[in-house]
Amino acid sequence: MKLATLKTAGRDGSLAVVSRDLSRAAPVPEVALTLQYALDNWTAVEPRLAHVYRMLNAGECGSVPFDSRRAAAPLPRAYQWLDGSAYLSHVERVRRARGAELPDRLRDDPLMYQGASDVMLGACDPIEAADEDWGIDFEAEVGVITDDVACGISVEEAASRIRLILLINDVSLRHLIPDELAKGFGFLHGKPASAFSPVAVTPDELGAAWTDCKVRLPLTVHWNGRLFGQANAGVDVQFDFARLIAHAARTRKLTAGTIIGSGTVSNYDAAAGYSCIVEKRVVEIIESGAAATGFLRYGDRVRIEMRDARGNSVFGAIEQEVRPCG
Amino acid sequence: MKLATLKTAGRDGSLAVVSRDLSRAAPVPEVALTLQYALDNWTAVEPRLAHVYRMLNAGECGSVPFDSRRAAAPLPRAYQWLDGSAYLSHVERVRRARGAELPDRLRDDPLMYQGASDVMLGACDPIEAADEDWGIDFEAEVGVITDDVACGISVEEAASRIRLILLINDVSLRHLIPDELAKGFGFLHGKPASAFSPVAVTPDELGAAWTDCKVRLPLTVHWNGRLFGQANAGVDVQFDFARLIAHAARTRKLTAGTIIGSGTVSNYDAAAGYSCIVEKRVVEIIESGAAATGFLRYGDRVRIEMRDARGNSVFGAIEQEVRPCG
Repeated sequence: MKLATLKTAGRDGSLAVVSRDLSRAAPVPEVALTLQYALDNWTAVEPRLAHVYRMLNAGECGSVPFDSRRAAAPLPRAYQWLDGSAYLSHVERVRRARGAELPDRLRDDPLMYQGASDVMLGACDPIEAADEDWGIDFEAEVGVITDDVACGISVEEAASRIRLILLINDVSLRHLIPDELAKGFGFLHGKPASAFSPVAVTPDELGAAWTDCKVRLPLTVHWNGRLFGQANAGVDVQFDFARLIAHAARTRKLTAGTIIGSGTVSNYDAAAGYSCIVEKRVVEIIESGAAATGFLRYGDRVRIEMRDARGNSVFGAIEQEVRPCG
Repeated sequence: MKLATLKTAGRDGSLAVVSRDLSRAAPVPEVALTLQYALDNWTAVEPRLAHVYRMLNAGECGSVPFDSRRAAAPLPRAYQWLDGSAYLSHVERVRRARGAELPDRLRDDPLMYQGASDVMLGACDPIEAADEDWGIDFEAEVGVITDDVACGISVEEAASRIRLILLINDVSLRHLIPDELAKGFGFLHGKPASAFSPVAVTPDELGAAWTDCKVRLPLTVHWNGRLFGQANAGVDVQFDFARLIAHAARTRKLTAGTIIGSGTVSNYDAAAGYSCIVEKRVVEIIESGAAATGFLRYGDRVRIEMRDARGNSVFGAIEQEVRPCG
């Protein structure tokens, strides 16, 4: 099943079921006005949404054309956004870029930060930054949306709490991050609003590409129309999503609608390219002594997409342009 | 005006107007089902709530007895919770306890962390911890709830975005924090769900005790019935709430319903006592070489309250017991 939130007058938009080929959308106000409502009442609501999905794919229910540009984030404001660091090649390269030490227990204790969730950008909303020189970077990720999660849940049980999967652009302001992290309290200014794929999908949509709570497909990143990365989200994954959920819930329960990100998808094989600019810069510095690639500038465009084995877009594309605030 | 959220079947409870003396509550489903709805539509809703408040205080509208034990957090799940560190005596003592360095720009650059907002505890909900030996501590704070805030807002403008004021117990697991902060990404396990006062009040309720975006009243903390602290929230404030809001919004806008905490209220004068245990322990270590005071144990009770110049409770009391998870 594929779900989207259409931009409407309200702050939370309107839930719609989207056809598998992403061409049509069926608003479902009689089932659930918002995705949060659906997640709050998943057991009751899911079968009804699944019914609409079957009808929609069969061309047997009313629908409108689906336009990614009219999609809000699946949860336009969410109660929780936690971002992990499942790909250690990203952690290693980024910390090297900052001259920061690697955590002692990097391989068995996930890095995770509490992110801002009050403003979640739609797939085609602009990346707004007041200063072009803040070192604006993208971070292409996969993520999950959970149901309620009990405090202290086991990894095994955590797997069953995953309701939806989606793509994320975790926008980062690289030049603000070193001073901010040096203060010791994590990110505040360095991680402005993130953007999300036009649709979120149930795990069954991925078929064999979803096993062991990993998404086993390449994540394609284009920058101004040129291929920048195609790291496989199923390769070099130190912590699968069940591990990340259990980690998040170690000392507290999580509410339905919690979004947990994988961290920047990254492969050790540099031939896969990169899902963020800073990794490329680090490799350039190692190889040639200086970074040749700059960060994003106003007017730059980023496109993040994941295609299945048959070449079909699973989630639709995140496609954002960088702009001044306002 | 005083507002509370009553525990009802739904996840977001039901908004009620509470009388100035905290004795009566008038549910207002015809005006706003939830506090979030009221905040989303403040300009339209506020005059209608204020009308109910006047009627309620005059005994001229239907009401029920107000029971703090039936109060959820004003926002039982919120889109954003940011906690500042406005009181430097707290920062200095706590970092000394951890053996951590003070940030370079402590006096002009507020510390602030992004906290979990998906589960907000009611005033009398238990503090649940799976392990009694995690170093369970309270942190008594004041906080504000904002309207929408523009990215890059000035300090002067930020003052006008404050809609409500409330008390907070920012529960902390001291023994988990040093390792967690050493990882560099801020708090995750060390800051489980926070609790909030039974009511949130509009700034005018504080009268002369609200000036320059500071709450100029003592915050009383009792631990198992014994007075533990009465630091004045208007004394030794390095960053007022307008400063904290402007800091939070430096690189992004904030959505209505954002809660911003002052950080643990703390005065340099030790005669004021303490609003968290760890500060007392640091002073004990300095004075006698060892901490005599332990952290919270199962069955311990914490009470946090603020009284006005006439001795009336402004927000009702946070009154929590520590329990095992379950």
